[in-house]
Amino acid sequence: MAVYTHISEADLSDLLKRYDIGVATSFKGIAEGVENSNYFLSTRNAHGNNQRFILTIYEKRANPEELPYFLSLTNHLADKGVAAPRPVKDIDGQYLQQLCGKPACIISFLDGVSTDDPNIEQCGAVGTTLAKMHHALGDYTAERKNDLSLSGWRPLAEKIIDDADQVETGLVALIKNELAFLEQSWPLNLPTGTIHADLFPDNVLFLGNEVNGLIDFYFACDDILAYDIAVCFDSWCFDPSGSFIHARAKRMLEMYDAHRPLSPEEMAALPILCRGSSLRFLLTRLYDWLHQVEGAVVKVKDPREFAAHLRFHQTIRDTADYVV
Amino acid sequence: MAVYTHISEADLSDLLKRYDIGVATSFKGIAEGVENSNYFLSTRNAHGNNQRFILTIYEKRANPEELPYFLSLTNHLADKGVAAPRPVKDIDGQYLQQLCGKPACIISFLDGVSTDDPNIEQCGAVGTTLAKMHHALGDYTAERKNDLSLSGWRPLAEKIIDDADQVETGLVALIKNELAFLEQSWPLNLPTGTIHADLFPDNVLFLGNEVNGLIDFYFACDDILAYDIAVCFDSWCFDPSGSFIHARAKRMLEMYDAHRPLSPEEMAALPILCRGSSLRFLLTRLYDWLHQVEGAVVKVKDPREFAAHLRFHQTIRDTADYVV
Repeated sequence: MAVYTHISEADLSDLLKRYDIGVATSFKGIAEGVENSNYFLSTRNAHGNNQRFILTIYEKRANPEELPYFLSLTNHLADKGVAAPRPVKDIDGQYLQQLCGKPACIISFLDGVSTDDPNIEQCGAVGTTLAKMHHALGDYTAERKNDLSLSGWRPLAEKIIDDADQVETGLVALIKNELAFLEQSWPLNLPTGTIHADLFPDNVLFLGNEVNGLIDFYFACDDILAYDIAVCFDSWCFDPSGSFIHARAKRMLEMYDAHRPLSPEEMAALPILCRGSSLRFLLTRLYDWLHQVEGAVVKVKDPREFAAHLRFHQTIRDTADYVV
Repeated sequence: MAVYTHISEADLSDLLKRYDIGVATSFKGIAEGVENSNYFLSTRNAHGNNQRFILTIYEKRANPEELPYFLSLTNHLADKGVAAPRPVKDIDGQYLQQLCGKPACIISFLDGVSTDDPNIEQCGAVGTTLAKMHHALGDYTAERKNDLSLSGWRPLAEKIIDDADQVETGLVALIKNELAFLEQSWPLNLPTGTIHADLFPDNVLFLGNEVNGLIDFYFACDDILAYDIAVCFDSWCFDPSGSFIHARAKRMLEMYDAHRPLSPEEMAALPILCRGSSLRFLLTRLYDWLHQVEGAVVKVKDPREFAAHLRFHQTIRDTADYVV
C-alpha cells in the first residue's frame, strides 16, 4: 500500500487544465504499488463523457530520466494491442508532468482483478500474453540495461551478505555458492529483447481467466527473453505452502511456446534462469528486509520465500522436470 | 490511508455470489478512512451493465452491534434524496456480511472530490446540505448516544491529562478549565436529533461547488442539531495558518439557516458549542497521539490544531463575532 504524496483538489484541478479530459468527478488514493503514489481518477468532459485513469506520482526511488523509457514502452504495447496502461498526452503532447515537485503521469485505467491463487487457465493466459508482449516489443528500440541481472547480483550480495544469516541460517552459504555457480554457468547466447522482468501475479489484471492488463513495467529492461518465463515460474507456480505446481508451469510454458516457439537452447536453460530469478528476488528482498525504515507504510516481503524457491530450482536437472 | 485486511480474489468472488450485481471487473484497496478497510469495486452484470461500489471491512474499533444503525441511517438519507452512500442488499435482503471473519458491507459509490481548501460557495453548500440532512433525519427513529459529548469528555480527559503538557505546555490547564466551564454552561434545552458529528472536509464529496456526497457516518448519533454546525465551523472555517475565515462561517450559517431556521437560543449557543467541538477533537487527537502504535499505517493528526481553535472560540463573546 502506498500513497506518499498528498495531492490537494487545487493541485489536481490545475493539473487537469493541462489535459483535454474534462474535470475530476472522483479522486482517491489507492493502495497499490510500493515505489510510487497512485490515485484513481474519474473525469467528465464537456460532452458528458466519463473516463477513468490512474494518476501516478513518481517517488524518490524512480529515476526521472528513465520514465520516458517506461511510458513509451507501455504506449508501444497498447498500440500493438497488448493490454498495457497507456500514458495520456496533455494538450502539448507531453506525457510527463511535475506535480508537488515530483514527476507525474496520467495513464489509462485498465479493468481487471489480480489473483493470488491462479488457476491453470490463468497461468496459460499469462504464458500467451508474455509471448505476445515479447513479439510486440520486438521493434521497441529504446534500451535499458537490467541492473538486477547477473552483473548486478554480486555487488548487491556484498551489501547484505554479512547480515543474511540473521534472517535465516545458511543464507550466506546459499548465496555465495549460487553466485559462483551462476557466474560460471549463466547462458550468454540466448535470444534477448525487452522484457517485463517483474511479472508477478499482482501485476496482471484478469477478467475471468483472460488477461485484461499488464501493469507496473518499472523493472522492464533488455535481457534474455526466456528469463521472463523464469520470473513467472518463480512467482506464479508455487502455492502458499511453497510447493511447485507442475500443472501451472506446464500450461504456462505450452501457451508461451505456442505463441513464441522456444529454441532447444532456451528450453534447456530454464532451470538456470529460474535459479537466477530466485537469487535476484532473494537478494532484493533481503536488502529491503535489512534496510526497513521504522514506521514505513509498506510491509516488507519475506525474503525466505525465494531462498526456498532457489533450493527447489537447484534440484531441477532438466526443464522436463518442471512440467511432469 | 488504511487497508488492514487483505481480500483475495477468491474471497471477493465468493462474496459477490451472494449479490445480484455481477462479477468484479476491478478491485483496489483505497487510501481512505482510518478506522476501516475500504476497496473500490466495479462489477458487470449479465446484461453488460457496469456499477461501482465501495466494499468496507469493519476493523476492530467498529462495534458490530452498531453497524445496522449507521447503515440504516445512510439508507434513510438516500431514500430522502440526501446524497449518502446506500448500503446494497444481498439476495437475502441483508446489508451486513462476514468477510475474513470481520463484518463487511457493499455500499454505493458516490462521485465527487473532497477539498482541503474550501471556497465560500462550498461552505454554503455544506450549510445547505447539513440542514437538509437534519430535516431528512427528523423521522429516523433509531437511537445512538453520543459517547463523545459532554458526559464523555471528563473520562476521556482523565486518560490523557497526565501527559498532555508533554505535547504542548499549557494543555493541562486549558483542558481542566474548559471542562469545568462546559460542565457549568453546556446548553440543555436546544433542539436535538440525529447528527453527523464528524462532517470534516474529507467527509464531503463535491462536484464543482455542489455537494454530491456525505460519507463516513460512523460517529453519527443523537445530539444537539446545532452542534453539527459547530463541528463544521471547527473543521471548515480555519485556514492552514489557523486563521478563522469569517466569510466561510457567514455563508455556511446563512445557508443552513435558510433551510432550517435557527432559533435565537441555537444561534446564541454557537460559541459554546464550538468550544465543545474543539475540546472533543483536542481530546480524541491527544488520546490517539499519546497512544500511537509504532509502525502504524495511519498518520496521527496533530492535536494542537484544536487547542488553537479552542483558544480562538474562547475569545468569541457573541455568534455575530463569527460572521463579521
